[in-house]
Amino acid sequence: MRLSRYFLPTLKETPAEAQIASHRLMLRAGMIRQGAAGIYSWLPLGQRVLKKIEQIVREEQDRAGALEVLMPTIQSAELWMESGRYDDYGKEMLRIEDRHGRAMLYGPTNEEMITDIFRREVRSYRDLPKNLYHIQWKFRDEIRPRFGVMRGREFLMKDAYSFDLTAEDGVNSYNAMFVAYLRTFARLGLKAIPMQADTGPIGGDLSHEFLVIADTGESEVYFEESFTTMSAPEALDTDSAGLQAIVDSWTTPYAATEEKYDPATCPVSSEKLIKGRGIEVGHIFFFGEKYSAPMNATVQGPDGDTVTVQMGSYGIGVSRLVGAIIEASHDDNGIIWPESVAPFRVGLLNLGTKSEECTSFCDTLYNDLQAAGIEVLYDDTSAGAGAKFANMDLIGLPWQIAVGPRGLQNGVVELKNRATGEKVELNPLDALAKLKV
Amino acid sequence: MRLSRYFLPTLKETPAEAQIASHRLMLRAGMIRQGAAGIYSWLPLGQRVLKKIEQIVREEQDRAGALEVLMPTIQSAELWMESGRYDDYGKEMLRIEDRHGRAMLYGPTNEEMITDIFRREVRSYRDLPKNLYHIQWKFRDEIRPRFGVMRGREFLMKDAYSFDLTAEDGVNSYNAMFVAYLRTFARLGLKAIPMQADTGPIGGDLSHEFLVIADTGESEVYFEESFTTMSAPEALDTDSAGLQAIVDSWTTPYAATEEKYDPATCPVSSEKLIKGRGIEVGHIFFFGEKYSAPMNATVQGPDGDTVTVQMGSYGIGVSRLVGAIIEASHDDNGIIWPESVAPFRVGLLNLGTKSEECTSFCDTLYNDLQAAGIEVLYDDTSAGAGAKFANMDLIGLPWQIAVGPRGLQNGVVELKNRATGEKVELNPLDALAKLKV
Repeated sequence: MRLSRYFLPTLKETPAEAQIASHRLMLRAGMIRQGAAGIYSWLPLGQRVLKKIEQIVREEQDRAGALEVLMPTIQSAELWMESGRYDDYGKEMLRIEDRHGRAMLYGPTNEEMITDIFRREVRSYRDLPKNLYHIQWKFRDEIRPRFGVMRGREFLMKDAYSFDLTAEDGVNSYNAMFVAYLRTFARLGLKAIPMQADTGPIGGDLSHEFLVIADTGESEVYFEESFTTMSAPEALDTDSAGLQAIVDSWTTPYAATEEKYDPATCPVSSEKLIKGRGIEVGHIFFFGEKYSAPMNATVQGPDGDTVTVQMGSYGIGVSRLVGAIIEASHDDNGIIWPESVAPFRVGLLNLGTKSEECTSFCDTLYNDLQAAGIEVLYDDTSAGAGAKFANMDLIGLPWQIAVGPRGLQNGVVELKNRATGEKVELNPLDALAKLKV
Repeated sequence: MRLSRYFLPTLKETPAEAQIASHRLMLRAGMIRQGAAGIYSWLPLGQRVLKKIEQIVREEQDRAGALEVLMPTIQSAELWMESGRYDDYGKEMLRIEDRHGRAMLYGPTNEEMITDIFRREVRSYRDLPKNLYHIQWKFRDEIRPRFGVMRGREFLMKDAYSFDLTAEDGVNSYNAMFVAYLRTFARLGLKAIPMQADTGPIGGDLSHEFLVIADTGESEVYFEESFTTMSAPEALDTDSAGLQAIVDSWTTPYAATEEKYDPATCPVSSEKLIKGRGIEVGHIFFFGEKYSAPMNATVQGPDGDTVTVQMGSYGIGVSRLVGAIIEASHDDNGIIWPESVAPFRVGLLNLGTKSEECTSFCDTLYNDLQAAGIEVLYDDTSAGAGAKFANMDLIGLPWQIAVGPRGLQNGVVELKNRATGEKVELNPLDALAKLKV
């Protein structure tokens, strides 16, 4: 993509309304603009990151055997009256009346709707287990939306819902999602630690939050230092004992959010305990019959008896992750994207737009990079070198290739790694070869 | 995908509420389920088709130089008061009050919001032309939603918005979208004819509707028979004269919707005029300053003067297209998917699930198909052969491979083309080779 044709309204000044790094940087890097309090438009750079995160989340859900559906944003209030949550949910639920005066709402989550789909279509234990997920916009009418996409009102969430015949099977489905989450966050370049959590308005006994550790996290967390050396499982073990073993290895070390941490009962000595800050990016629940019982979601069991299904739900804040990744990976100059979610892999800077030779060289390199399947943002504008470098650092592409008339005389370009700051002069073929890896 | 693990609740009976073929078939094929009037959940098979259509639409927008953004579903009412459409839009607009009593709405379209983004960020004629699009859910509170996804309330739309310095440039942007639409619909396996159209609540002078011709179309259309032999342009000619020539060739032959057709003034003799039925799948508008003037969307022109930008907007009904494709391509037995949007390319039927040999053979073939990158739905269930064939015809995958114990004795499988009904017995390697093409 040529920057001259792109829509990338970066800002030099830090917007006054932004209190945290990700909000500031997303505004400055031209990723988002606010439409109304807590409601954002995603400009091209932000949209690309959002889609990449969405795709990684999708791939790991598919790999774990979940099936993608797509439920609507607007729901009928009736189902929520059936489950009893219509009144419980309070003012966070955006309630709507349609032209015929029917009570509707903008879904803050989908337990009721998916349970309704399930009970209408599934009759037999032979059809279990099932795990259905979707990636759809949700709305929660936060009283004080803030921190950009980290606590917005309209937000993109992946939510999965599992249906099993027995509680044991249900825990297995829970474990499969637990492991999928470890893999998902690792692929996003994040260190996410599962912590026991309160279940809040979703309900149930078994629940974990996944928190990304970042200095600028929203809440205090405490965890054993052994987490720092653990890495996510490479392949998904679908055997239930294998899944349980992975879950055990990640839940045995101590980890707790501020609300759950109590120095009096904490089993870990202070030398081995790390106090940090965390950002919630995922939350999983096993809640058994909480929705299936009141909503009559049953199947015929192997013995012909009617069995109420065991359910769990599994959320990932897709739009929130954009902010969380930035909180975990930025410096004073801007964002540092992990390669897996970078909007472009390479930024190509023409530092000699007045030189026909330099421009023609850059045009050729741009075409070569694209032909090699490398996503590249090509700064072909007439801005000065300083502004171009600052802009590239701000938007945080993993690699920068700077081409100037002086280097060209020696047949070299400068390749910079955004994360390490390391710069090397290379001939362009070597630079291309290095990026192709 | 193994059918035994999939979620495909097909129906034998025709649902009473469905009046048209696409609605009936989408319900019967387990693609959608209604959540509330005109609001649908997309089950796995439907979700796959929807995403494939969305991706083709996206690729052709990108190819035409449009930039993808993502605007939210919920908008502040203020912008609509500025443009004057807040009152005009009437009861079709879903109006919402948030917890603080602020007037919001669920966007039925995005002219106001994109104009606001543009005017806040773009200052100079040097940044023009720009065409920004998104693919997002919209809501129109139809008084009588019907025909399934063809006239739903919550629907997925691709809407693009062009910004130009002059009316001439604006027409060029319009032409680029016109040509992109021809290519898009052709890739979706559709014959879509552009017709001059009323501009309705969007406004402007220059406008075309794209209508798919189908016996079951919603409205009567009249067009010259020469359209039947025209085919969409292969490559996108970005030269403005080239674009204009393509547009001219598609707008010179006569074509009119019922409202615009008048036998007294129709220039085409009755032998050369085809009367058919059409389904609107796209609508493009050039409306100049209709929004940019009241909303003050201006740039500095080359002479330093302030210029109000020239705008157009370009919609494609993505969710509606699922229905339109089915209306244009089905028979008494079910859907006939064009290859480009088929949820799976191949259906593999194991007709001998009780035979270990047959099952093991099918398992291997299933793996081979997947390894060859062919999307396959594998009916590994214990249903009878008749039910399996009927089910595959209903869901309309382009190819079926039936494997039975008798054929296996002769080393052959049956390959069926869903569209032509043609069946051939082949050895499995030849079947695989044929599908790899």
